[in-house]
Amino acid sequence: MRPQAPAVVLVSGGLDSATTLAIARDAGLRCFALSVAYGQRHEVELDAARRVVAAVGAEQHRIVSMDLSAFGGSALTDPTIAVPETETEGIPVTYVPARNTVFLSLALAWAETLDARDIFIGVNAVDYSGYPDCRPAFIEAFRALADVATRAGTEGARFKIHAPLIELTKAEIIIRGTALGVDYGQTVSCYQPDRAGRACGRCESCRIRRAGFAAAGVPDPTSYAD
Amino acid sequence: MRPQAPAVVLVSGGLDSATTLAIARDAGLRCFALSVAYGQRHEVELDAARRVVAAVGAEQHRIVSMDLSAFGGSALTDPTIAVPETETEGIPVTYVPARNTVFLSLALAWAETLDARDIFIGVNAVDYSGYPDCRPAFIEAFRALADVATRAGTEGARFKIHAPLIELTKAEIIIRGTALGVDYGQTVSCYQPDRAGRACGRCESCRIRRAGFAAAGVPDPTSYAD
Repeated sequence: MRPQAPAVVLVSGGLDSATTLAIARDAGLRCFALSVAYGQRHEVELDAARRVVAAVGAEQHRIVSMDLSAFGGSALTDPTIAVPETETEGIPVTYVPARNTVFLSLALAWAETLDARDIFIGVNAVDYSGYPDCRPAFIEAFRALADVATRAGTEGARFKIHAPLIELTKAEIIIRGTALGVDYGQTVSCYQPDRAGRACGRCESCRIRRAGFAAAGVPDPTSYAD
Repeated sequence: MRPQAPAVVLVSGGLDSATTLAIARDAGLRCFALSVAYGQRHEVELDAARRVVAAVGAEQHRIVSMDLSAFGGSALTDPTIAVPETETEGIPVTYVPARNTVFLSLALAWAETLDARDIFIGVNAVDYSGYPDCRPAFIEAFRALADVATRAGTEGARFKIHAPLIELTKAEIIIRGTALGVDYGQTVSCYQPDRAGRACGRCESCRIRRAGFAAAGVPDPTSYAD
């Protein structure tokens, strides 16, 4: 990556993507933040995304709306499926079918228009080992696709899909982001926050986040309802 | 493909996707038609998609809205870029960045929810050789991605991305579709139809379509303004 190169960074408003944006900024890239409003139940995430981008900084922030709930199949888009509050085996019901494929496709579309070659996504294979589209094999397959899917690629460009958190524990992510000045009080991880944006403290995402701050030895700024 | 298996078919309202839907139906599949309203200038296409699905038949038809014009970069989404009316070299300005990657991602999301393994897309590498995401290498790269991107894939499922028109000429497509009973009068190919849905007769898509009917020796049902 050359300094001042444009990069598209997917920003959800969660802890991981806030850290990813801070890492891309720290690398000297001009960051174009992309959020996707995908009919999720936790729209409070988008408010968090706006706060994160304002605080960490970016050249632009675009929010693309689409209705993935039209397809159903996930507790995060289908209000009839409950968010689990105990540990589950295998791929959780909070998995949204092909979500990161859709997100990276949109990032690729914008990257091509911007003449950017670098795309950042805050996926993590440690805490989210149950999600297929958070694994290194997925990132590598998307990179291979990007080169044949685009005008830029057929003209010789090589895209890079950066997933700087993919092998880190939650505690390592928090330590890294804290060193970069990320204010995690602005981020929302909870799968079912209340209207005020307060975390439930019980869902898998809250449990992982809480344990991460404890393991990192960093004070947890989250406002938990429970 | 087993008969009566569910399949997701991308339907734009154009000649190619109408033929693709007819081919999938003829194979005995239960077709779930997917159209994407992507901020295109030619929204008349969506009306055509509805007519095509009603005539050819499908179990369901879903239209997902998203605003690809947020990214710009194409004559089909950016009103400040003119649709060319003479032949151009290289990749045309009507190329929409990463469009088929986005479309296939959405089809994959729905396929996973439906427990479908077959996805149909009416891309064509003969007439649209300038579009990178209409080529066999793109289709193969997406297939490889689908298996690692999904819960179904990590559990052993193998997705198939069917592009039955990819090596056909426009005349061959028209002959095939006519034999399957497709009424091409319901389809719209024009990049800049008027409000009544009448084709301009001058853009690249109109020129290819017109020449295709002539070469096929099939009467052209299109209403051209010019």
